[in-house]
Amino acid sequence: MLDTSAGFLVDEGRLDALEIGAAVLGTGGGGNPYIGKLRAREALRQGYVMRVIPLEALPDDAVVVSVGGIGAPLVSHERIKHGSEGLRCVRALEKHLAISVDAIVCEEIGGQNAMEPLITASMAGLPVVDCDGMGRAFPEMQMTTFSIFGHCSTPSVMCDPHGNAVIFEHAISEKWHERMARACVVAQGGASTLASAPMSGRFLKQYSIPQSYSQAIRLGEAVVAARQAHADPIRAICDSENGEVVFRGKIVDLKRKIEGGFVRGTVMVQGFDGYEGQVGSVLIQNENLVFSRDGVAEVVVPDLIVILDIDTGAAITTEMLRYGQRVAVLALPCHPLLRSEAALEVVGPRGFGLDLAYRPMGRAEKERKPS
Amino acid sequence: MLDTSAGFLVDEGRLDALEIGAAVLGTGGGGNPYIGKLRAREALRQGYVMRVIPLEALPDDAVVVSVGGIGAPLVSHERIKHGSEGLRCVRALEKHLAISVDAIVCEEIGGQNAMEPLITASMAGLPVVDCDGMGRAFPEMQMTTFSIFGHCSTPSVMCDPHGNAVIFEHAISEKWHERMARACVVAQGGASTLASAPMSGRFLKQYSIPQSYSQAIRLGEAVVAARQAHADPIRAICDSENGEVVFRGKIVDLKRKIEGGFVRGTVMVQGFDGYEGQVGSVLIQNENLVFSRDGVAEVVVPDLIVILDIDTGAAITTEMLRYGQRVAVLALPCHPLLRSEAALEVVGPRGFGLDLAYRPMGRAEKERKPS
Repeated sequence: MLDTSAGFLVDEGRLDALEIGAAVLGTGGGGNPYIGKLRAREALRQGYVMRVIPLEALPDDAVVVSVGGIGAPLVSHERIKHGSEGLRCVRALEKHLAISVDAIVCEEIGGQNAMEPLITASMAGLPVVDCDGMGRAFPEMQMTTFSIFGHCSTPSVMCDPHGNAVIFEHAISEKWHERMARACVVAQGGASTLASAPMSGRFLKQYSIPQSYSQAIRLGEAVVAARQAHADPIRAICDSENGEVVFRGKIVDLKRKIEGGFVRGTVMVQGFDGYEGQVGSVLIQNENLVFSRDGVAEVVVPDLIVILDIDTGAAITTEMLRYGQRVAVLALPCHPLLRSEAALEVVGPRGFGLDLAYRPMGRAEKERKPS
Repeated sequence: MLDTSAGFLVDEGRLDALEIGAAVLGTGGGGNPYIGKLRAREALRQGYVMRVIPLEALPDDAVVVSVGGIGAPLVSHERIKHGSEGLRCVRALEKHLAISVDAIVCEEIGGQNAMEPLITASMAGLPVVDCDGMGRAFPEMQMTTFSIFGHCSTPSVMCDPHGNAVIFEHAISEKWHERMARACVVAQGGASTLASAPMSGRFLKQYSIPQSYSQAIRLGEAVVAARQAHADPIRAICDSENGEVVFRGKIVDLKRKIEGGFVRGTVMVQGFDGYEGQVGSVLIQNENLVFSRDGVAEVVVPDLIVILDIDTGAAITTEMLRYGQRVAVLALPCHPLLRSEAALEVVGPRGFGLDLAYRPMGRAEKERKPS
């Protein structure tokens, strides 16, 4: 039996903190969680209850379904969701498979997909598990620890705001699932919601990134506390996430284009505040993928690269980067699961078509210091 | 109970005739039925039995599913189907809806979609009903009498040759179904197979185009007989279909482009053999839509416009039109169901975005003669 009194409730204060934390963990992508937060807050005010339970509270045979938005973040900023898409996905999946879902799980804690599971779960009267499949944001559906470690994400259900529903009954691979769902979401107007095939509690305990919600909320709360104390929010993020500032400077060049549904480009930063005479650059595909110093790659995906406004400590998403912004570049270590060989094939530099080896940022740091 | 001894069997000779008849009824589109015929013949040679039963043999409560190819005809010429796509669609639909299918029906008798129902039905051990939803070929899914007269074609199942399966669980309209399925078939490589939501025997008796298979086969047999007798196959087509030759001449200009997944264009024909000094033109969107004489529209969709090689009597599909071809243009009256107001909204000139009124070709003929 699932202990539904375990874990913690999400209130409006925690939603605000989650918004900040999810934006940082979005590493430039994943969409801005602000709109999602407004929808979640509205649900709270209507009396829906949002409970996050720890992985340990989940029975091994629990039936857990992941829910998230799919499509272009920019579309979801302009076209508000109907609201019940996630719930319709879960109900259709239950009917199609003749199952009863016990809990909802998050695919992607970075960006706006942190909010959808809370909204859907509260409407369904279910808890959300305190974990996710990325520990950050990634641009494609197959880039979850769930898929990487063997979960077949079909059958899945995709619902749009108009009322259309599509079941991806079987895909011969996770990449094919992504390909078909991506084409379909474009036909549906660019921003839909998807629920994937159920996973067991046992599988999640082994292959999810644990404590994503509590981590993201704690991170947001640290930033809020630092701001209230007029302390440095960037320092607070580094302390909370075991990260480090790798660069400070002004954006002096920005190449950015939309290609194949992705934002791609490079941002160049002229150093100051201890980085004078250095040029930092960040390579982008929706998310920040590689940070280089004077042309040498130093922090590489799946480690997290976050570009922050140097004054407010607010994370800047890739579509919001502008010439002249004064920024700090942070590196945060990714979860060890993402550093496994199987994961690096999918979410390491090669997974993004980059001819670059992955070096864990902790090691890179050590190697860099002596020089 | 369904009388499975009713109707007739399709043998190799009838397949050959069907290929010819379906090409004529394709009115320039629907894809060349040759490849489909080869697949159907192979199934016959493997021992599968193809039975076509009359509408009257169908009980009112029979569960009938339509099956057809969806995608670009040219792709299906180059990439041979796996073979079991239609069967997988039917089985997935049966499982999803917990039903048992009694018979298969054809969406589109014109072009290569005449063959798929025979192949699928024979593999499933089911009969094909002697009717279809167009009586010709049309480019989009919602252009069937089934959809026009109120059948909701979802849930439907689409399978590709790779092994992927998608269920369109619910579409808010037939056009939305078309839009999502079209996007998905492109992602699947451009040529998949789709089975639509079941229809009852009662519905089909009222709203299908009856006797499509026997008509197409009889038409093909008339052409074969004319060729064997060194008679005029074009005359044979007109006699069989109550049609008339409206033009003879040489193709002197051809504008054709691929736009939004459709072949669009105009073909100009300089008259001869009684049409000297006249210029005929045919407007194309996959199928032949409008025949005009000296700039005045004379035969208009949904009436059938067929361009034939003047020597062999073979139908020329729109992608095979070439400068210098010597052709006859035939007009064949469409089925009365397609001339209803409801049908003309969808498959009349306005359904194709043409600012043109529909005049039944019989009437046009009468009006033209006195002048």
